Amino acid sequence: MNVAMILKEKGSKVHTVPSDVSVEEATRRLRELHVGALVAVTGEGKITGVFSERDLVRAVHHEGAGALAKPVSTFMTKSVVTAKCEDTLEELMGQMTSRRIRHLPVIKGGELVGIVSIGDLVKARIAASENEAEALKQYISAG
Amino acid sequence: MNVAMILKEKGSKVHTVPSDVSVEEATRRLRELHVGALVAVTGEGKITGVFSERDLVRAVHHEGAGALAKPVSTFMTKSVVTAKCEDTLEELMGQMTSRRIRHLPVIKGGELVGIVSIGDLVKARIAASENEAEALKQYISAG
Repeated sequence: MNVAMILKEKGSKVHTVPSDVSVEEATRRLRELHVGALVAVTGEGKITGVFSERDLVRAVHHEGAGALAKPVSTFMTKSVVTAKCEDTLEELMGQMTSRRIRHLPVIKGGELVGIVSIGDLVKARIAASENEAEALKQYISAG
Repeated sequence: MNVAMILKEKGSKVHTVPSDVSVEEATRRLRELHVGALVAVTGEGKITGVFSERDLVRAVHHEGAGALAKPVSTFMTKSVVTAKCEDTLEELMGQMTSRRIRHLPVIKGGELVGIVSIGDLVKARIAASENEAEALKQYISAG
């Protein structure tokens, strides 16, 4: 099971936000889109960072209410860890838990082609386990 | 693999917060404790809710900067889903992804005895897979 297979199921939609919108506006989008992270981009679509629920915590911790009017670029995570289509579920689960991150933008040929969350990986892992169990049952009953 | 085994590894520490502290103070604690959620409790230790990074997003979305001075009880998740020590990893992974929650307080005999996050479950699942693979290798080489 790899990233390409997860995106095939989930779709390639990534919610992006210009790096200069306010933290308050980005927070509004997180809530309305029901996502945990937005990919911040320049006008040309170049990735500049990721703004997640955790970055909002950091922003409020640093500057209190004043943080909300500042551009998202002030608080977003700029050293973005990305995934490739051929990365396996197991590799990414390991990376996410060891680095304590929950969202990985997926890059193919320099382009943003999707995003996977830790929830997506867990969901895919459960589906894979159920398939394995089913295959095993059929194998046993055929034996 | 069940919750009791995960808590044995992780410890039973749960970060709690009185339900009447401000959203800003709770956010400060989320950041400083490096956790994604706090369990809100009364003076007698009774659980009243969970305040997570996602609840901060909801608070800021609803009331902007004004939310930060309000008590955490205004925005916390009050219908708390909990786990039991005998719940299995697979059951909880399924619950977390279907309900889109990331933290489950663990209750035993009416008392709060720990908390498990989706990250804890993934970490435990990886460790279990590695053990299974190792056991299988030994079984094959012995055969």
